[in-house]
Amino acid sequence: MLQNKVNVQVIVWTTLIGGFFSSLVKWGSEVNMPPRMPGEISPPGAHIDAWLGWLGINSHSLDYVYQGVTVPGAVTLYHWLFSFAFAFLYVVGSIWWPRIRLWFGALYGIIITIVMHGFFIPLLGFRNPVYANGATGWLWNLNQAELWSEILGHIYWSVSIEVCMIAVLAYFGRPIKGNWVAA
Amino acid sequence: MLQNKVNVQVIVWTTLIGGFFSSLVKWGSEVNMPPRMPGEISPPGAHIDAWLGWLGINSHSLDYVYQGVTVPGAVTLYHWLFSFAFAFLYVVGSIWWPRIRLWFGALYGIIITIVMHGFFIPLLGFRNPVYANGATGWLWNLNQAELWSEILGHIYWSVSIEVCMIAVLAYFGRPIKGNWVAA
Repeated sequence: MLQNKVNVQVIVWTTLIGGFFSSLVKWGSEVNMPPRMPGEISPPGAHIDAWLGWLGINSHSLDYVYQGVTVPGAVTLYHWLFSFAFAFLYVVGSIWWPRIRLWFGALYGIIITIVMHGFFIPLLGFRNPVYANGATGWLWNLNQAELWSEILGHIYWSVSIEVCMIAVLAYFGRPIKGNWVAA
Repeated sequence: MLQNKVNVQVIVWTTLIGGFFSSLVKWGSEVNMPPRMPGEISPPGAHIDAWLGWLGINSHSLDYVYQGVTVPGAVTLYHWLFSFAFAFLYVVGSIWWPRIRLWFGALYGIIITIVMHGFFIPLLGFRNPVYANGATGWLWNLNQAELWSEILGHIYWSVSIEVCMIAVLAYFGRPIKGNWVAA
Protein backbone atom coordinates (compact mmCIF):
# COMPACT_ATOMS: atom_id res chain seq x y z
CA MET A 1 0.00 0.00 0.00
CA LEU A 2 2.67 2.49 1.05
CA GLN A 3 4.77 1.41 -1.92
CA ASN A 4 2.34 3.46 -3.98
CA LYS A 5 3.54 7.05 -3.91
CA VAL A 6 0.09 8.45 -4.70
CA ASN A 7 -1.45 6.67 -1.72
CA VAL A 8 1.14 8.25 0.55
CA GLN A 9 0.37 11.66 -0.95
CA VAL A 10 -3.33 11.14 -0.28
CA ILE A 11 -2.57 10.32 3.36
CA VAL A 12 -0.23 13.27 3.83
CA TRP A 13 -2.46 15.86 2.15
CA THR A 14 -5.68 14.65 3.76
CA THR A 15 -3.94 14.83 7.13
CA LEU A 16 -2.64 18.35 6.49
CA ILE A 17 -5.65 19.88 4.73
CA GLY A 18 -8.29 17.91 6.63
CA GLY A 19 -6.57 18.47 9.96
CA PHE A 20 -6.16 22.18 9.37
CA PHE A 21 -9.66 23.01 8.14
CA SER A 22 -11.45 20.65 10.51
CA SER A 23 -9.74 22.27 13.50
CA LEU A 24 -11.10 25.65 12.40
CA VAL A 25 -14.53 24.13 11.71
CA LYS A 26 -14.73 22.70 15.23
CA TRP A 27 -13.81 26.05 16.75
CA GLY A 28 -16.31 27.79 14.52
CA SER A 29 -19.07 25.44 15.65
CA GLU A 30 -18.49 26.59 19.23
CA VAL A 31 -19.49 30.18 18.43
CA ASN A 32 -23.18 29.27 18.26
CA MET A 33 -23.08 26.53 20.88
CA PRO A 34 -20.33 26.99 23.45
CA PRO A 35 -19.49 23.53 24.82
CA ARG A 36 -18.76 24.71 28.36
CA MET A 37 -19.83 27.31 30.89
CA PRO A 38 -17.53 30.35 30.98
CA GLY A 39 -14.53 29.80 33.24
CA GLU A 40 -14.45 26.01 32.89
CA ILE A 41 -11.13 24.69 31.69
CA SER A 42 -11.26 22.88 28.34
CA PRO A 43 -10.19 19.23 28.10
CA PRO A 44 -7.04 20.26 26.18
CA GLY A 45 -6.20 22.75 28.91
CA ALA A 46 -6.74 20.11 31.61
CA HIS A 47 -4.55 17.59 29.72
CA ILE A 48 -1.72 20.06 29.34
CA ASP A 49 -1.80 20.99 33.01
CA ALA A 50 -1.85 17.35 34.09
CA TRP A 51 0.60 15.81 31.65
CA LEU A 52 3.10 18.45 30.71
CA GLY A 53 3.70 20.10 34.07
CA TRP A 54 6.96 18.18 34.55
CA LEU A 55 8.24 19.91 31.40
CA GLY A 56 7.37 23.28 32.88
CA ILE A 57 4.46 23.64 30.41
CA ASN A 58 0.93 24.48 31.47
CA SER A 59 -2.29 25.66 29.81
CA HIS A 60 -1.06 29.25 30.01
CA SER A 61 2.28 28.54 28.42
CA LEU A 62 2.49 30.32 25.08
CA ASP A 63 -0.32 32.72 26.06
CA TYR A 64 -0.15 35.80 23.90
CA VAL A 65 -2.18 38.97 23.53
CA TYR A 66 -3.71 39.71 20.13
CA GLN A 67 -5.76 42.87 19.71
CA GLY A 68 -6.21 43.05 23.44
CA VAL A 69 -7.45 39.44 23.69
CA THR A 70 -5.39 36.88 25.62
CA VAL A 71 -5.10 33.77 23.46
CA PRO A 72 -4.03 30.53 25.18
CA GLY A 73 -1.38 29.52 22.65
CA ALA A 74 -0.61 26.11 24.15
CA VAL A 75 -4.28 25.11 24.17
CA THR A 76 -4.85 26.24 20.57
CA LEU A 77 -1.71 24.42 19.42
CA TYR A 78 -2.88 21.28 21.22
CA HIS A 79 -6.34 21.57 19.59
CA TRP A 80 -4.64 21.77 16.20
CA LEU A 81 -2.27 18.84 16.83
CA PHE A 82 -5.21 16.68 17.88
CA SER A 83 -7.12 17.61 14.75
CA PHE A 84 -4.19 16.60 12.53
CA ALA A 85 -3.78 13.33 14.47
CA PHE A 86 -7.47 12.44 14.09
CA ALA A 87 -7.50 13.37 10.40
CA PHE A 88 -4.52 11.02 9.95
CA LEU A 89 -6.37 8.29 11.86
CA TYR A 90 -9.39 8.84 9.61
CA VAL A 91 -7.59 8.56 6.28
CA VAL A 92 -5.37 5.66 7.36
CA GLY A 93 -8.27 3.94 9.09
CA SER A 94 -10.30 4.12 5.88
CA ILE A 95 -7.77 1.79 4.22
CA TRP A 96 -8.62 -1.10 6.50
CA TRP A 97 -12.12 -0.11 7.56
CA PRO A 98 -13.76 1.93 4.77
CA ARG A 99 -17.00 2.18 6.77
CA ILE A 100 -15.26 4.76 8.95
CA ARG A 101 -16.38 7.16 6.16
CA LEU A 102 -20.07 6.29 6.60
CA TRP A 103 -22.54 9.19 6.24
CA PHE A 104 -19.86 11.41 4.70
CA GLY A 105 -17.77 11.03 7.80
CA ALA A 106 -20.52 11.88 10.29
CA LEU A 107 -20.23 8.46 11.95
CA TYR A 108 -16.63 9.23 12.90
CA GLY A 109 -17.64 12.45 14.62
CA ILE A 110 -20.39 10.72 16.57
CA ILE A 111 -18.01 7.95 17.70
CA ILE A 112 -15.36 10.48 18.77
CA THR A 113 -17.89 12.44 20.82
CA ILE A 114 -19.30 9.42 22.61
CA VAL A 115 -15.98 7.68 23.23
CA MET A 116 -13.77 10.67 23.98
CA HIS A 117 -16.13 13.16 25.63
CA GLY A 118 -18.53 10.62 27.13
CA PHE A 119 -15.99 8.20 28.55
CA PHE A 120 -12.28 8.69 27.96
CA ILE A 121 -11.85 12.31 29.01
CA PRO A 122 -13.94 11.81 32.21
CA LEU A 123 -12.07 8.54 32.87
CA LEU A 124 -8.79 10.44 32.85
CA GLY A 125 -10.32 12.94 35.28
CA PHE A 126 -10.43 15.86 32.86
CA ARG A 127 -14.14 16.65 32.93
CA ASN A 128 -16.06 17.60 36.04
CA PRO A 129 -18.75 20.03 34.90
CA VAL A 130 -19.65 22.78 37.34
CA TYR A 131 -23.32 22.29 36.42
CA ALA A 132 -23.05 18.76 37.85
CA ASN A 133 -21.44 20.04 41.07
CA GLY A 134 -18.11 18.70 39.86
CA ALA A 135 -19.23 15.06 39.49
CA THR A 136 -17.28 13.02 36.95
CA GLY A 137 -18.55 14.01 33.51
CA TRP A 138 -19.55 10.57 32.25
CA LEU A 139 -21.82 10.60 29.20
CA TRP A 140 -24.94 10.42 31.40
CA ASN A 141 -23.73 13.31 33.59
CA LEU A 142 -23.25 15.73 30.67
CA ASN A 143 -26.10 18.13 30.04
CA GLN A 144 -27.89 18.38 26.69
CA ALA A 145 -26.31 21.72 25.85
CA GLU A 146 -22.83 20.25 26.10
CA LEU A 147 -23.77 17.06 24.27
CA TRP A 148 -25.43 18.85 21.36
CA SER A 149 -22.50 21.21 21.06
CA GLU A 150 -19.97 18.38 20.99
CA ILE A 151 -22.03 16.03 18.79
CA LEU A 152 -22.90 18.62 16.14
CA GLY A 153 -19.45 20.23 16.38
CA HIS A 154 -17.73 16.89 15.85
CA ILE A 155 -20.07 15.97 12.99
CA TYR A 156 -19.21 19.23 11.22
CA TRP A 157 -15.56 18.53 12.04
CA SER A 158 -15.48 14.95 10.72
CA VAL A 159 -17.56 15.73 7.64
CA SER A 160 -15.13 18.52 6.83
CA ILE A 161 -12.28 15.97 6.98
CA GLU A 162 -14.27 13.78 4.57
CA VAL A 163 -14.84 16.72 2.20
CA CYS A 164 -11.10 17.42 2.22
CA MET A 165 -10.39 13.72 1.64
CA ILE A 166 -12.74 13.63 -1.37
CA ALA A 167 -11.02 16.72 -2.79
CA VAL A 168 -7.56 15.22 -2.24
CA LEU A 169 -8.58 11.86 -3.77
CA ALA A 170 -10.03 13.68 -6.78
CA TYR A 171 -6.92 15.84 -7.11
CA PHE A 172 -4.71 12.73 -7.23
CA GLY A 173 -7.05 10.93 -9.62
CA ARG A 174 -8.12 8.32 -7.09
CA PRO A 175 -11.63 6.87 -6.71
CA ILE A 176 -13.43 9.14 -4.25
CA LYS A 177 -15.23 6.30 -2.51
CA GLY A 178 -14.82 2.62 -1.79
CA ASN A 179 -11.37 1.07 -2.01
CA TRP A 180 -9.27 4.09 -2.89
CA VAL A 181 -5.93 2.34 -2.33
CA ALA A 182 -6.31 -0.29 -5.06
CA ALA A 183 -3.53 0.21 -7.59
CA MET B 1 -25.40 26.20 -18.92
CA LEU B 2 -28.32 26.00 -16.50
CA GLN B 3 -30.06 23.61 -18.88
CA ASN B 4 -27.59 21.03 -17.59
CA LYS B 5 -29.02 19.59 -14.39
CA VAL B 6 -25.61 18.51 -13.07
CA ASN B 7 -24.25 22.05 -13.38
CA VAL B 8 -27.14 23.32 -11.30
CA GLN B 9 -26.45 20.65 -8.70
CA VAL B 10 -22.80 21.68 -8.55
CA ILE B 11 -23.84 25.30 -7.95
CA VAL B 12 -26.41 24.39 -5.29
CA TRP B 13 -24.20 21.97 -3.35
CA THR B 14 -21.07 24.13 -3.52
CA THR B 15 -23.13 27.03 -2.20
CA LEU B 16 -24.57 24.95 0.64
CA ILE B 17 -21.52 22.92 1.64
CA GLY B 18 -18.96 25.61 0.84
CA GLY B 19 -21.02 28.33 2.51
CA PHE B 20 -21.60 26.27 5.62
CA PHE B 21 -18.07 25.04 6.23
CA SER B 22 -16.35 28.25 5.18
CA SER B 23 -18.44 30.24 7.67
CA LEU B 24 -17.20 27.96 10.46
CA VAL B 25 -13.63 28.16 9.13
CA LYS B 26 -13.66 31.96 9.23
CA TRP B 27 -14.95 31.95 12.79
CA GLY B 28 -12.36 29.37 13.75
CA SER B 29 -9.59 31.52 12.32
CA GLU B 30 -10.58 34.30 14.72
CA VAL B 31 -9.74 32.19 17.78
CA ASN B 32 -6.00 32.63 17.24
CA MET B 33 -6.16 36.12 15.75
CA PRO B 34 -9.18 38.11 16.93
CA PRO B 35 -9.92 40.70 14.22
CA ARG B 36 -11.08 43.41 16.61
CA MET B 37 -10.41 44.76 20.09
CA PRO B 38 -12.90 43.46 22.70
CA GLY B 39 -16.05 45.57 22.80
CA GLU B 40 -15.87 46.76 19.19
CA ILE B 41 -18.98 46.00 17.20
CA SER B 42 -18.41 43.66 14.24
CA PRO B 43 -19.22 44.85 10.70
CA PRO B 44 -22.23 42.46 10.58
CA GLY B 45 -23.48 43.90 13.85
CA ALA B 46 -23.06 47.46 12.55
CA HIS B 47 -24.87 46.60 9.30
CA ILE B 48 -27.80 45.09 11.13
CA ASP B 49 -28.14 48.08 13.43
CA ALA B 50 -27.97 50.52 10.52
CA TRP B 51 -30.05 48.75 7.92
CA LEU B 52 -32.65 46.68 9.73
CA GLY B 53 -33.65 49.05 12.48
CA TRP B 54 -36.82 50.04 10.60
CA LEU B 55 -37.88 46.40 10.82
CA GLY B 56 -37.39 46.45 14.56
CA ILE B 57 -34.29 44.25 14.21
CA ASN B 58 -30.92 45.09 15.75
CA SER B 59 -27.64 43.32 16.48
CA HIS B 60 -29.10 41.98 19.72
CA SER B 61 -32.24 40.59 18.12
CA LEU B 62 -32.23 36.82 18.41
CA ASP B 63 -29.68 36.92 21.26
CA TYR B 64 -29.83 33.69 23.20
CA VAL B 65 -27.98 32.24 26.17
CA TYR B 66 -26.18 28.93 25.66
CA GLN B 67 -24.27 27.41 28.57
CA GLY B 68 -24.22 30.78 30.24
CA VAL B 69 -22.79 32.53 27.17
CA THR B 70 -24.87 35.19 25.40
CA VAL B 71 -24.75 34.45 21.67
CA PRO B 72 -25.76 37.25 19.28
CA GLY B 73 -28.10 35.18 17.11
CA ALA B 74 -28.78 37.86 14.50
CA VAL B 75 -25.07 38.50 13.94
CA THR B 76 -24.23 34.81 13.61
CA LEU B 77 -27.13 34.28 11.20
CA TYR B 78 -25.93 37.25 9.15
CA HIS B 79 -22.36 35.87 9.10
CA TRP B 80 -23.74 32.59 7.79
CA LEU B 81 -25.96 34.18 5.14
CA PHE B 82 -23.00 36.20 3.84
CA SER B 83 -20.86 33.08 3.65
CA PHE B 84 -23.51 31.27 1.58
CA ALA B 85 -23.89 34.34 -0.68
CA PHE B 86 -20.14 34.58 -1.30
CA ALA B 87 -19.82 30.83 -1.90
CA PHE B 88 -22.59 31.17 -4.50
CA LEU B 89 -20.77 34.12 -6.08
CA TYR B 90 -17.58 32.04 -6.17
CA VAL B 91 -19.02 28.99 -7.91
CA VAL B 92 -21.16 31.00 -10.34
CA GLY B 93 -18.32 33.46 -10.95
CA SER B 94 -16.01 30.58 -11.86
CA ILE B 95 -18.22 29.83 -14.88
CA TRP B 96 -17.43 33.14 -16.55
CA TRP B 97 -14.12 33.92 -14.89
CA PRO B 98 -12.33 30.66 -13.98
CA ARG B 99 -9.33 32.60 -12.67
CA ILE B 100 -11.42 33.44 -9.61
CA ARG B 101 -10.19 30.01 -8.40
CA LEU B 102 -6.51 31.00 -8.67
CA TRP B 103 -4.19 29.65 -5.94
CA PHE B 104 -6.85 27.19 -4.76
CA GLY B 105 -9.22 30.04 -4.07
CA ALA B 106 -6.78 32.15 -2.05
CA LEU B 107 -7.01 35.03 -4.55
CA TYR B 108 -10.73 35.35 -3.82
CA GLY B 109 -10.11 35.69 -0.09
CA ILE B 110 -7.46 38.35 -0.64
CA ILE B 111 -9.75 40.33 -2.96
CA ILE B 112 -12.63 40.14 -0.48
CA THR B 113 -10.45 41.37 2.37
CA ILE B 114 -9.02 44.33 0.45
CA VAL B 115 -12.27 45.36 -1.22
CA MET B 116 -14.74 44.72 1.59
CA HIS B 117 -12.69 45.37 4.74
CA GLY B 118 -10.30 47.92 3.25
CA PHE B 119 -12.82 50.03 1.35
CA PHE B 120 -16.46 49.05 1.20
CA ILE B 121 -17.21 48.53 4.90
CA PRO B 122 -15.42 51.78 5.88
CA LEU B 123 -17.13 53.58 2.98
CA LEU B 124 -20.50 52.60 4.39
CA GLY B 125 -19.37 53.91 7.77
CA PHE B 126 -19.22 50.53 9.51
CA ARG B 127 -15.60 50.51 10.61
CA ASN B 128 -14.05 53.09 12.89
CA PRO B 129 -11.41 51.26 14.92
CA VAL B 130 -10.93 52.44 18.48
CA TYR B 131 -7.17 52.04 18.02
CA ALA B 132 -7.35 54.74 15.32
CA ASN B 133 -9.33 57.07 17.60
CA GLY B 134 -12.45 56.29 15.60
CA ALA B 135 -11.07 57.48 12.23
CA THR B 136 -12.64 55.86 9.17
CA GLY B 137 -11.11 52.40 8.84
CA TRP B 138 -9.77 52.68 5.31
CA LEU B 139 -7.23 50.03 4.35
CA TRP B 140 -4.33 52.31 5.34
CA ASN B 141 -5.91 53.07 8.73
CA LEU B 142 -6.25 49.41 9.75
CA ASN B 143 -3.52 48.05 11.98
CA GLN B 144 -1.43 45.01 11.05
CA ALA B 145 -3.13 42.80 13.63
CA GLU B 146 -6.54 43.41 12.04
CA LEU B 147 -5.21 43.06 8.49
CA TRP B 148 -3.38 39.80 9.15
CA SER B 149 -6.42 38.38 10.90
CA GLU B 150 -8.76 39.29 8.04
CA ILE B 151 -6.35 38.35 5.22
CA LEU B 152 -5.40 34.95 6.65
CA GLY B 153 -8.95 34.30 7.87
CA HIS B 154 -10.39 35.06 4.44
CA ILE B 155 -7.74 32.95 2.70
CA TYR B 156 -8.61 29.97 4.89
CA TRP B 157 -12.29 30.78 4.23
CA SER B 158 -12.02 31.00 0.43
CA VAL B 159 -9.70 28.00 0.13
CA SER B 160 -12.22 25.98 2.14
CA ILE B 161 -14.90 26.97 -0.41
CA GLU B 162 -12.56 25.76 -3.18
CA VAL B 163 -11.94 22.46 -1.36
CA CYS B 164 -15.71 21.96 -1.08
CA MET B 165 -16.12 22.86 -4.75
CA ILE B 166 -13.50 20.29 -5.81
CA ALA B 167 -15.27 17.66 -3.70
CA VAL B 168 -18.67 18.55 -5.19
CA LEU B 169 -17.29 18.55 -8.75
CA ALA B 170 -15.70 15.15 -8.15
CA TYR B 171 -18.87 13.78 -6.62
CA PHE B 172 -20.86 14.80 -9.71
CA GLY B 173 -18.19 13.47 -12.06
CA ARG B 174 -17.19 16.91 -13.35
CA PRO B 175 -13.66 18.06 -14.18
CA ILE B 176 -12.25 19.50 -10.97
CA LYS B 177 -10.44 22.36 -12.69
CA GLY B 178 -10.70 24.46 -15.83
CA ASN B 179 -14.00 24.68 -17.65
CA TRP B 180 -16.20 22.51 -15.44
CA VAL B 181 -19.46 23.52 -17.16
CA ALA B 182 -18.64 22.11 -20.60
CA ALA B 183 -21.20 19.43 -21.43
